[in-house]
Formats: sequence, structure tokens, C-alpha cells
Amino acid sequence: MADAVTLSLAEVHALALRVLQAHGVSVLQAEAIATLITAAERDECTSHGLFRLPGYVRSVRSGKVTPDALPVVRELAPAVIQVDGKNGFAPLALQMGQAPLISKARQYGIAVLAVTQIYHFAALWPEVEALAEQGLVALACTQAMSYVAPAGGQTPLYGTNPLAFGWPREGRPPLVFDQASSASARGEIQLHLRDGHPLPAGWAIDTAGRPTTDPAAALAGAQLPFGGYKGAALALMIELLAGALIGEVFSFEASARDNHDGGPPIGGECIIAIDPVRCVEHANRQRQLAHAETLFQAILAQDGTRLPSDRRYAARQQTPHTGIHVPQQFYEELQRLA
Amino acid sequence: MADAVTLSLAEVHALALRVLQAHGVSVLQAEAIATLITAAERDECTSHGLFRLPGYVRSVRSGKVTPDALPVVRELAPAVIQVDGKNGFAPLALQMGQAPLISKARQYGIAVLAVTQIYHFAALWPEVEALAEQGLVALACTQAMSYVAPAGGQTPLYGTNPLAFGWPREGRPPLVFDQASSASARGEIQLHLRDGHPLPAGWAIDTAGRPTTDPAAALAGAQLPFGGYKGAALALMIELLAGALIGEVFSFEASARDNHDGGPPIGGECIIAIDPVRCVEHANRQRQLAHAETLFQAILAQDGTRLPSDRRYAARQQTPHTGIHVPQQFYEELQRLA
Repeated sequence: MADAVTLSLAEVHALALRVLQAHGVSVLQAEAIATLITAAERDECTSHGLFRLPGYVRSVRSGKVTPDALPVVRELAPAVIQVDGKNGFAPLALQMGQAPLISKARQYGIAVLAVTQIYHFAALWPEVEALAEQGLVALACTQAMSYVAPAGGQTPLYGTNPLAFGWPREGRPPLVFDQASSASARGEIQLHLRDGHPLPAGWAIDTAGRPTTDPAAALAGAQLPFGGYKGAALALMIELLAGALIGEVFSFEASARDNHDGGPPIGGECIIAIDPVRCVEHANRQRQLAHAETLFQAILAQDGTRLPSDRRYAARQQTPHTGIHVPQQFYEELQRLA
Repeated sequence: MADAVTLSLAEVHALALRVLQAHGVSVLQAEAIATLITAAERDECTSHGLFRLPGYVRSVRSGKVTPDALPVVRELAPAVIQVDGKNGFAPLALQMGQAPLISKARQYGIAVLAVTQIYHFAALWPEVEALAEQGLVALACTQAMSYVAPAGGQTPLYGTNPLAFGWPREGRPPLVFDQASSASARGEIQLHLRDGHPLPAGWAIDTAGRPTTDPAAALAGAQLPFGGYKGAALALMIELLAGALIGEVFSFEASARDNHDGGPPIGGECIIAIDPVRCVEHANRQRQLAHAETLFQAILAQDGTRLPSDRRYAARQQTPHTGIHVPQQFYEELQRLA
């Protein structure tokens, strides 16, 4: 790649750590973020990789996020763990909640992790994948900035509200999906604007509530949920699960409170973990997971199909050998930030 | 209404009970089904009301369903309840699982109900509404006959796999949605065929995997998930939750095993209940629910919006006064069945 710097995954991690620590992010917070950024680059999820670093930095510089926040873990009920992120970034809070959530799910069969007072600036697949790696079925969702109109409505209310799901597999990485409730990511509209391309139909409406394929009109107007009113219902469910259920804000409240420094808004995350062997009478983990494999085989037996996570896992095989290609100009920006 | 018989809700219930008992359905099973059918008619969900009775009867006549099955309730883990439906219809099994699920959710904060070996022939909103009426947040899903192609695929694999969600409200019925993972219900395609109308785009593909608006070609081919690959991912998640997770079949296995008597296939249902007051540090039920109301108000403040369950609740106000209008011919068919 011309005008690009090639970094190993270890170099990505070190660079992220250096940039974050240069701005007063504590080593615990910075390690958790750097690990997540490196995982994103490893899986070629470029938009959640090093690309996010300037946003993390801006959120610290603006004074919005507490860079050395130390999350507090509480047991709210036998099967409910809360991690109060204490106004810090999400990764450390998520990391601290993981072990107690796993333990509770195994003990009670199902458990919920309520993560509050965090700034989430990443994908959700890392948290559900980590739980599924431990043999659990996992569901995660979070609110976001208010960009998406409700069904039939005209102006932004919901966030792009992702829902992620993980299912464990024997001897291979879990089946995972992680998808926004909106028809597209915000960033995809911004890329269409930059490149002068019209949007696909169904992505957005303008400020008057009319369907639009003009990226600028879409950014000024509202994004649409995927799949019409059904996607909107999911967005609403996610507002309730990651908002009112766990004592956190809704997307429209998070947006109203945000200082628009280019970083993530305040919010929460709701994660449910279920131990499959506790959900059947005669537990036999291998048989249960083998049964799921028959479904995956039936999907893949049809031409043109793939499993949701396969593209990431294919990239994961490659990047340790090929390294990560970072555009020269962006690499220099990161060096200056460090 | 011309050529229609008007029945009170009590008469609907009595008629359903009489038809079912005339075919050997035990009083416990029949009461649970009749209550569900009456609730559907009350809310003007006609396709899940008396309309379903002939299908229930066919499933008994064909020998597929055990008409006097007595479900067995087991505690599989502290927060996991299983109801083995013993090859009977779903309503009694669901009814028997409800109280222990509520109790577990309140005790542990979250709990799961795994209902197995049932024939589910109704909507899912009754079960999530009942839980939300008790102050719990509820999620339910079930597999179905194999009618829906996976993302990118050509032939039926998934069921229409509904997902239902309920959120409690102070002094009024819960917010509830209940939606198929498919773009349309199977029955809607059958109605288009009957009426000679083309289908909307995006509902189905023909046997060659090409998009079609011909209802006959759609019924021979495959239905499509709503919202493309994202809806398909939900359908896949539901197969896993209501199938492999709880030791039940997938839709394609249920279809293969079915005798196609016109009744429902064998399957399971997975219901998750969460107690919101156990998910916050300083529990205050009124404050938590009032917070959710601010979101509902923000939705309704936009022209053209409504809350997912509002149409059903409006009907519920009317039908006790107006009664239920049953087409004369269908009413006579039911009388013969009784």
C-alpha cells in the first residue's frame, strides 16, 4: 500500500497505549482500550481501530471523560452485577465486569451485567465474543448519540443502538453478530458525503422527514432504522434495556448532555449471559454445541451464505502475518498525539 | 357486518372451550387455549383468535399433539425454569411456567424459562404482557415452520421466528411488541394469493432464489427476513435460543418432523424475565418507570408515531362493548366442530 506504514499488532497496541498515556489516561484504562483497538485492527474492523484514538484523546482533552476512572463492581442481586464506570471509558469497566458475570451465569444459569456511567466508543462483538469463548451465550446492547428517527417520525431520537449476540463453538471462535438498529452506520453516510456518492434508498430522511439519498441532507435530518418499524422496535427495546432498566440515560438525553467534542456520549451497556448447560435437563455441552453446528452447516450448504462473524475471523488469520496498514498521514497524526 | 354472528368475549371463550373439549382436549389444556384465543379476539388479533381453532382440532385428530398432556415444571438451575410441555399445546405449559419465572426473576434479578415439547400456535405478546403486568421486563422468542431463507440463500431454513418484548408501565398496560423475523407473516402471502394481489417487493424469492412478487411463487420458494442480513441474524439467534440452548429442535428439523396436518410444528420457547428494581443501585420502581415514560412521550411527540402495542389496547377498549364479529360460514363450521 502506497503512503502507508505497516505495523505489527504489538506495535498497534504500543502506539495506542503511548497516545492514551500521553494524555493522562491511566495505565488500567489505557491497557483496556489499547487491547480493544488492537483486536479491532486484528479483525480488520478499521473503523473501531486506531481510527478511534483521536476521539478518545478529544474526550479527555475536553474534560468530558475521567481518564483515570476506577470502575466499581457491585452485586445488585444474586444474578445482577453492576459496574459503575465512574465517568470513564467503557473497556476497563467491561473487563472488570466479565469475570463476575461469567461466574454468576454459571452459578444461576443466567445473569445480567449492567454497566453504567461509561463512554462506549467501540463495537460490541468483543464483549459477547469473550463470553462465548467461555462457553456462554451472550447478548449485549448499548444506546448511542441520538441520530435515528422513530417509526413514522421525522427527527432523531434513538441512537444507532447496536445489538450483539454470541454463541460458543467447539474448537473454533464463537458465532457472533453485532449490528446497529439503524439501516447504516453514521460513518457510512459521512463516507458517502466525502466521496460525493448518493446514499442507498432507505437509509435516511431530510429535515422535513422526506426520504433522501443526499448524504448532507441525511446528516442534517435523521437516519432510519433498518427494516422499518421492526428495526425501530429493536432500537426502542435497546433504549430501555441499556437505559431505564439499568438506571442510565436514553440516547436523546446523552446527546443533549454531550459537549460534542467528537468522542462518544455517556451511557450504559446491558449484557445478558446464559450458560447453555444449565438450560437442559441432561447437560451435555458437546451434544448441545454439536446440535448448533447442524444449523450452521445447513446455512452454509446454501450458495451465497456465510456466518455473521466469518469475515472477521478470516482477517484474524491474516493480520498477524501481513500487519496493519496505517495511512502515512494518519500515522504521523498519531505520532504527534503520542 | 353482513353475514356475521356477533359474540361476546364470554361466548368466544365458551365456544372455543366446547370445540376443544369435543375433540378430547383436557379441561386444563382447553381452558388455557380458550383464554388465549379470547384475548386475541378481544385485541382484534383475528388471525390468532377463533381462526386458529380448526388447526388445533386438526393437530389432535391427526394424533400429532397429546390433547391431555400435563406439562412438568423443573428447576434446572437457581434462575432457570424448564416446562416440559409433554407434546401438548403451548398455552398450559406457558401458564404453568409463569409463576415460577416471576418468582425467580424477583429473587435473582433475572431468570429464564425454557419451554420445550410444545406446539405453539399463537402470538407471543400474551406471555410478555403477562410478565410486564407483574412489573418485569420480558423477552420471548420461538422457532416455527421452516419458511425463511438465510441471508444470501435460496431455500427455506429459518422459521418466521417471532421476538416479543414487554416493558411495564405504571397504571396502564405494558409496552409490548411482537414481531416476526420475516418480512411478512406467512398468512399475509396467502391472503395476497387469495385476493390476486402482487406482493410488496422484498417479501420473498422464488424456487430459483430470484426476488418475486407472485404469491404462488413465493409460497413455493422462500420468505425473506425483514431488513436483509440483519433480520436474518435475528432469525438465527432465535433458532439458537429457542432451539439448541434449551434442547429443542430448529425450525428445519420441526418442519421435517411435522405431519403437515395444518396445525403448528413441535418446538420450544425461550423467555427471559428481568426485574428492573434489581438492576439499579437505589431501587425506586416509580422513578425507573417514569423515566421510561419520558422516552415514550418523546416518541409520541413526533407526528405519525405510535407505541407498538397501542392498536391492540385501543381494540381492547372496544370489543367488550361491540362484541366479536365472526363470519357466518366460519361460525357454522365451528358449531359443527363443537
